[in-house]
Amino acid sequence: MKSEIIAVGSEMLTPYRQDTNSLFLTEKLNEIGVSVAFKTIVGDRQKDLVNAIRGALARTDIVLIMGGLGPTEDDLTREAVAEALSLTLRRDAPLVAALHARAASWRMTMPDNNLKQADVIEGATVLPNPNGSAPGQWIDTTFEGFRKILALIPGPPSECKPLFETECLPRIRAAAPKRFIAKRTLKAAMIPESQADKLLAPIYQTYTDVETTILAHNGDIQLTLLCSKKNIETAQQRVDELASLMEEALDDWLYSSEGESLEQIVLYYLGLRQATLATAESCTGGLIAQRITSVPGSSRSFVGGAVVYSNELKAAFAGVQPELIEKHGAVSEEVAKAMAAGIRQRTGATLGLAITGIAGPTGGTDAKPVGLVYIAVSDAQRTDVLERTFRGSRTRVREWSAQQALDLVRRRLM
Amino acid sequence: MKSEIIAVGSEMLTPYRQDTNSLFLTEKLNEIGVSVAFKTIVGDRQKDLVNAIRGALARTDIVLIMGGLGPTEDDLTREAVAEALSLTLRRDAPLVAALHARAASWRMTMPDNNLKQADVIEGATVLPNPNGSAPGQWIDTTFEGFRKILALIPGPPSECKPLFETECLPRIRAAAPKRFIAKRTLKAAMIPESQADKLLAPIYQTYTDVETTILAHNGDIQLTLLCSKKNIETAQQRVDELASLMEEALDDWLYSSEGESLEQIVLYYLGLRQATLATAESCTGGLIAQRITSVPGSSRSFVGGAVVYSNELKAAFAGVQPELIEKHGAVSEEVAKAMAAGIRQRTGATLGLAITGIAGPTGGTDAKPVGLVYIAVSDAQRTDVLERTFRGSRTRVREWSAQQALDLVRRRLM
Repeated sequence: MKSEIIAVGSEMLTPYRQDTNSLFLTEKLNEIGVSVAFKTIVGDRQKDLVNAIRGALARTDIVLIMGGLGPTEDDLTREAVAEALSLTLRRDAPLVAALHARAASWRMTMPDNNLKQADVIEGATVLPNPNGSAPGQWIDTTFEGFRKILALIPGPPSECKPLFETECLPRIRAAAPKRFIAKRTLKAAMIPESQADKLLAPIYQTYTDVETTILAHNGDIQLTLLCSKKNIETAQQRVDELASLMEEALDDWLYSSEGESLEQIVLYYLGLRQATLATAESCTGGLIAQRITSVPGSSRSFVGGAVVYSNELKAAFAGVQPELIEKHGAVSEEVAKAMAAGIRQRTGATLGLAITGIAGPTGGTDAKPVGLVYIAVSDAQRTDVLERTFRGSRTRVREWSAQQALDLVRRRLM
Repeated sequence: MKSEIIAVGSEMLTPYRQDTNSLFLTEKLNEIGVSVAFKTIVGDRQKDLVNAIRGALARTDIVLIMGGLGPTEDDLTREAVAEALSLTLRRDAPLVAALHARAASWRMTMPDNNLKQADVIEGATVLPNPNGSAPGQWIDTTFEGFRKILALIPGPPSECKPLFETECLPRIRAAAPKRFIAKRTLKAAMIPESQADKLLAPIYQTYTDVETTILAHNGDIQLTLLCSKKNIETAQQRVDELASLMEEALDDWLYSSEGESLEQIVLYYLGLRQATLATAESCTGGLIAQRITSVPGSSRSFVGGAVVYSNELKAAFAGVQPELIEKHGAVSEEVAKAMAAGIRQRTGATLGLAITGIAGPTGGTDAKPVGLVYIAVSDAQRTDVLERTFRGSRTRVREWSAQQALDLVRRRLM
């Protein structure tokens, strides 16, 4: 069965706001074997809405319409669906009572226009929305001779998501042919996307029944494998088979077989080795620490660190001798190594991770261009250092650098 | 004139990837007075593509189609546009030669299927794409008796954006009625969205010729004002008039009148006062330092800081007496103040900023729940501290906390 998601709201046709609910809906639909064939974003104009709804009904079986269910003049989804299907709207007495009760519980008097939220399309099932005032609606009807399912869903994510999961998904599952979906997510670090695709395409292309998606972002590669079958065992078997071939091909680029983030994996290995980590960051300015501490429970293995932007702090917090900076420059192999050893010693952590570089957009020279970074990792035995040059914007250089630094720690712990 | 943007690619119908080019296109179109009435996302199936293109032609004047111009079997935009308009495709000899030259310059032999990138729709103008192998195409035609403009644009952002700006925008501007757009962006911190809207709606609703968009995210409010007129002076006057009324209403919630970020403003004030800043972060784990150092040139006013996750580091880097932590707990007014004063003293910065709190999801108690944070700012004269409790996920608590901390520094410097 093919579906279309329509997101309603003029604000999503500005440069500032984007529909994101549809990603959640798509994930849930795919899990029950329903694919999304189109997404449409339309503003708060009834004529445009009717056009979008009729177009969707003509080309798909399930039409999910998000937004435009509130109390304002701009909320026109109910009216537009009724017009598109040539159905009437009736004001529902229990819903009117519920709206009055809701207003009373907030000690507010309800403006009359709020009542439009009690308008129900002829033949629709009302879908309760415990998180907001406008309920959803479910319509199982025919359009030009074919069975069509429509769901009207509130736009705010806190209302949309639970209502979709509780009220819509079970109904769609009952209407759709029974399929089971198996899924796996693999992740790899620091392998270029083109190289990953060259390596993996010959493998995944032979699995035509598994849908493989490759997503690359600043040194992180995410591979999602989806397989839909009439029974879950066969689907899982196909996904696992392909996953293990890909794991083998990715070798030690691979860091996760179950979708964990690189910072989660680093923390996992630290826990396993009963080791702790401290960081000394110059060009990444706290980005590495921020990624690690975004993981709940990270305090068990991460003691903290320093953002040593100035040369004085490189000395004060990471014990770097000023003469070393004078001789080799703040961005140098020697200073990176001293920072890693120094932060380890100052904090008493098992491992010290340090990074120094030129994030740009200015500050580069011929000898030391923008994007040059040194990353060092130090333990009681030895200190290793890596030189890399990343291209692109300040943000891009910082994100690649942080990714490379975390990957270096992972490889040291493996 | 109404436009529609069609983004082509099955990967944008998965839960993992989203069209973002359209935000850039929308911004540029709005600036020349062209609104976007619909956005459609469609997969790599010719039948679906033809359906989407015909639907767009029937309801808008300008149809921008991004993606599906590459060399693979899945790249079907050229074929679909030709079919939708009942036009033929011809293979263009100069483009074939250019493809061969491009492959030769990379010392590669070109696979035959690459040649489809040289297929041009009957009557189309070829739009050169210096950043990739597939050129764009521009079609000025009629559909069901009306003039329609179509542009075929490559999908990769690094090709899409420059080609759209250089080749499409001037042509659209020539075709569209002449309008001038004035724009202003105001920003405010830590005012709840509902309160901002209550304060501002009575003002901006009287300016029906200015389009006001409010975007709120974790303590940051962005207001965008757009006005389209036949001459730029009138448009600018209306926007500036509304902006100054809103600035007055926002009072000291307002931090920027020209769209700068909060970290940029903090750095601006630090520069103005010839002051420097250092941070000691516990629950935000480097998030504040990372935001500040994301601004180019931040090293002039930001010396660095410490991520003091463990109690030992609170002592070692921020000079917090262990007895103070023992007596009041690591998350307390007293420890926050000691951290701010300590990091200032250790780093020699003019201002010390410190934050300690419980980011969650676990670690809360009845007395000190998840979301409780203490933020302190210290200079030579005094140390102030603020207690806040933020609700929601670990990420949300951390982001609100970082925003509040930066705003506290801004207010101290004002």
